[in-house]
Amino acid sequence: MSIKVTLIPGDGIGPEVSYAAQSVITASHAPIEWEVVEAGEACIAQYGTPLPEHVLETIRRNKVALKGPITTPVGKGFRSVNVALRKQLQLYANVRHLKNLPNVPSRYEGVDIVVVRENTEDLYAGIEHMVGRDAAESIKIITREASERIGRYAFELARQEGRKRVTIVHKANIMKLSDGLFLESVRSVAHDYPEIECEDRIVDAMCMNLVQTPEQFDVLVLPNLYGDIISDLVAGLVGGLGVAPGANIGEMGAVFEAAHGSAPQIAGKNLANPLAMILSGIEMLKYLGFVEEAKRVETGIEHVLRQRDYITADLGGKSGTKEMAAAIIKAM
Amino acid sequence: MSIKVTLIPGDGIGPEVSYAAQSVITASHAPIEWEVVEAGEACIAQYGTPLPEHVLETIRRNKVALKGPITTPVGKGFRSVNVALRKQLQLYANVRHLKNLPNVPSRYEGVDIVVVRENTEDLYAGIEHMVGRDAAESIKIITREASERIGRYAFELARQEGRKRVTIVHKANIMKLSDGLFLESVRSVAHDYPEIECEDRIVDAMCMNLVQTPEQFDVLVLPNLYGDIISDLVAGLVGGLGVAPGANIGEMGAVFEAAHGSAPQIAGKNLANPLAMILSGIEMLKYLGFVEEAKRVETGIEHVLRQRDYITADLGGKSGTKEMAAAIIKAM
Ligand SMILES: CC(C)[C@H](C(=O)O)[C@@H](O)C(=O)O
Ligand SMILES: CC(C)[C@H](C(=O)O)[C@@H](O)C(=O)O
Repeated sequence: MSIKVTLIPGDGIGPEVSYAAQSVITASHAPIEWEVVEAGEACIAQYGTPLPEHVLETIRRNKVALKGPITTPVGKGFRSVNVALRKQLQLYANVRHLKNLPNVPSRYEGVDIVVVRENTEDLYAGIEHMVGRDAAESIKIITREASERIGRYAFELARQEGRKRVTIVHKANIMKLSDGLFLESVRSVAHDYPEIECEDRIVDAMCMNLVQTPEQFDVLVLPNLYGDIISDLVAGLVGGLGVAPGANIGEMGAVFEAAHGSAPQIAGKNLANPLAMILSGIEMLKYLGFVEEAKRVETGIEHVLRQRDYITADLGGKSGTKEMAAAIIKAM
Repeated sequence: MSIKVTLIPGDGIGPEVSYAAQSVITASHAPIEWEVVEAGEACIAQYGTPLPEHVLETIRRNKVALKGPITTPVGKGFRSVNVALRKQLQLYANVRHLKNLPNVPSRYEGVDIVVVRENTEDLYAGIEHMVGRDAAESIKIITREASERIGRYAFELARQEGRKRVTIVHKANIMKLSDGLFLESVRSVAHDYPEIECEDRIVDAMCMNLVQTPEQFDVLVLPNLYGDIISDLVAGLVGGLGVAPGANIGEMGAVFEAAHGSAPQIAGKNLANPLAMILSGIEMLKYLGFVEEAKRVETGIEHVLRQRDYITADLGGKSGTKEMAAAIIKAM
């Protein structure tokens, strides 16, 4: 029996990297049937929004989607499509597996970190107002429910992946109530996972530790905004967003996405590195229980990166997007 | 005529590194008269607070202070002493000059960044409340006045130091009103400095850029919380808080401080690296207009770091705090 998955190619280089990922995943023999829907720039003229209701509908129906980058239109009225997707589908966990890959240029080695970011509240709740013309207030919201939920997600992930330690990141020395509640909530969950070490760090010190000795960290759990910042920081340690998978996971489904942009300057030129999308596809396969198939793709990537004959320009090679995908398939 | 300066030795290793800095600065021939006052743990028994009113008074009178690390007592009632000092004295600009120093271990080279952090508002305003027992709100406040003021500070600094570019860091794609106001306010100031390039970056992308290619950045200007995070991140790129000077500057005066902690485990053992305090002292000398004297101390540090015979254990040497200070004085 095959499983239906929504594929949203997205803007700019999105279609190229999405089709590369689709071909690789199909070649893994995972029994996936693709339902391709447009979102992003292509939708605005026809629907007046980059994220029409029928797109949300297909994801709600299929419960799983793989998504290319979507540009948020500049100017009034449009809010981030990524944020809207997460909120509308209650995808409360933003998860990034970030580790050094063979021959991907980086100043660091031995980095293998999972960033688990709360995806629904904090300053991303979007509650703001002006106070007169010369002052603005934004409201940071932290709830026990969402904090415990993301805490539990992080510890479950640690247990399932056989990881040793969860680090809670916060600024509870300044935000004693909000970050204090986050810290307390995640800690309360930790008791159910006695085999996993639980520690906490203050966000500024954490960033210093990450750029000095990232190899000491394992799973991180963070409120939305620190999670946003530290996801990108850690991606930078292992080669950037071009090699970083992303996942947004909730009770009712999951959207896997490359966290990089749509890179319009190189769109349509067969130049884009498809790795972030393919790696996101691997996360999707694992989520669906296709562990063998995921391993197969990993083997293909590993081989192509080690061998270096079919890698894109950003990795120091001369290969095109399609050729790199084909080489991964061949090596699987 | 000599200038009176308040010296607050602080907690833990504070006295050692403070007296090291004091001896080096005195040896630079800067005409400084020191008024030493206690703050921190030593004050709590006698005054019930780590920051008694008479300490604030001496700083208000002398207008300039050099301060060692002060531990904020754990537990109810005490708020951060550092934050209290900044607020009480309206020290609106937190400035850190962060650059690679000879033989200070770092994965990076060519980093030379000034972080200019707004020091009075944002989530540090400390406005928080619980909403029932299971939710908390913290309020982020951004005003045009404070944003323009820090913007002007950053551009003035860039002009005076002959720097080329100011990068405004924000998350205005999500916090359109508050971070939007910060961005707009700093940009409005930029017009008065046509010779200095002004650009802006989103805070998450900025962190990725910083860990990948920090040498591209010059002066950064940020609201309080991003400034806190990125100050420590950049300090990590050049060797950590042990080699990072700090300054808090306002209309009515300035407090120079090492941003590192009080390291109680090694306190009193003549092991602490005094560089952060001495570098903060250099910033103080420049602030007071003692440019020649500042240069002298820089020369001494440069020599001792290059020569490597008198450096502390954290830098790979075997020297004590006092011996390192003495070597710097000798090389001045
Ligand atoms: C595009 C932007 C709104 C988004 C965010 O801030 O969450 C992005 O940075 C991410 O991390 O996916
Ligand atoms: C000690 C702490 C309250 C302080 C801050 O958050 O501002 C520190 O991190 C700093 O940057 O000086």
